[in-house]
Amino acid sequence: MTTAKRDTYTPETLLSVAVRVFNERGYDGTSMEHLSKAAGISKSSIYHHVSGKEELLRRAVSRALDGLFAILEEEHARAGRPAGRLEHVVRRMVEVLIAELPYVTLLLRVRGNTETERWALERRRDFDHRVAELLKAAAADGDVRGDVEVRLATRLVFGMINSIVEWYRPDARGASGQEVADAVVRLVFSGLRQD
Amino acid sequence: MTTAKRDTYTPETLLSVAVRVFNERGYDGTSMEHLSKAAGISKSSIYHHVSGKEELLRRAVSRALDGLFAILEEEHARAGRPAGRLEHVVRRMVEVLIAELPYVTLLLRVRGNTETERWALERRRDFDHRVAELLKAAAADGDVRGDVEVRLATRLVFGMINSIVEWYRPDARGASGQEVADAVVRLVFSGLRQD
Repeated sequence: MTTAKRDTYTPETLLSVAVRVFNERGYDGTSMEHLSKAAGISKSSIYHHVSGKEELLRRAVSRALDGLFAILEEEHARAGRPAGRLEHVVRRMVEVLIAELPYVTLLLRVRGNTETERWALERRRDFDHRVAELLKAAAADGDVRGDVEVRLATRLVFGMINSIVEWYRPDARGASGQEVADAVVRLVFSGLRQD
Repeated sequence: MTTAKRDTYTPETLLSVAVRVFNERGYDGTSMEHLSKAAGISKSSIYHHVSGKEELLRRAVSRALDGLFAILEEEHARAGRPAGRLEHVVRRMVEVLIAELPYVTLLLRVRGNTETERWALERRRDFDHRVAELLKAAAADGDVRGDVEVRLATRLVFGMINSIVEWYRPDARGASGQEVADAVVRLVFSGLRQD
């Protein structure tokens, strides 16, 4: 039996419930009924806060995207040699991914079936492009190897970073977010080989 | 209208149709009806070849797993210093992933809802463990950096390699399988930084 709670949600707290359900069931597989059950409030209470599940998706992926784009505005991402700026961006991407884990997880699972999903994919591509441009500039300086094509290198580095959502859990006894960020920066820039 | 084809399938060719449908719809979301429509033969014709969709899943993920485990039996994976053996395994993992792209894609999406899926996850863990042991041995030799914990480094390297299934397409005008394998070996062992 579902016990209806008094609706004490704000759009912000409702969002965290929605993101959990979207990540568990997939966005396409989530109905307003599922959201209502998970939040313990009626569907009409949810409609009091948001226009529907697509608005919740838009708010959720915006949070992830805003976190990522904000990195590019940070001083260390804007000043200095491109290779140093790139290193800052890689480290901060890992930190933002871990700080906003459910939101970034959802962003990475977006497939493009709705207008909001296509918009999110477009913004992801913009972000990837900005990072690829930094890598290109660092390679032009001779600070980054020139024997791996920029687009391919960007994809592989993003692949490593994005894979963290598959296994990182904040309560795990494993590596801390800081250790993961350090490890990624070491591997991406210097590789496994002992110098 | 679906035109029923004469059943000219073998278990092998039926498998390639099933893997495509599993990757498109998800294994859970695929019914025998979907498989019958995609293959253009009746459900009873499918049952003539296999006991059901779980057998198709088992055959498909076995093909991926057998390809990966066979790498560990290759001479260059067994002889020489652990760091050299590890480099061989990393290169060959990329090659097998690309050669068996739909099968490895399916393997990486397995979630553990059925006995076959749990068995596949278990074998994946065995494989990951064998590679982690090589990395550990290479670090003990001093050939691989000791400042990134072995389990974490293994996860990040597998993350980079496995992410290739998300974008690699054999008919793309992009990088060839060989270029991707070279790029992964360079990045994993030496990183982006120009020496």
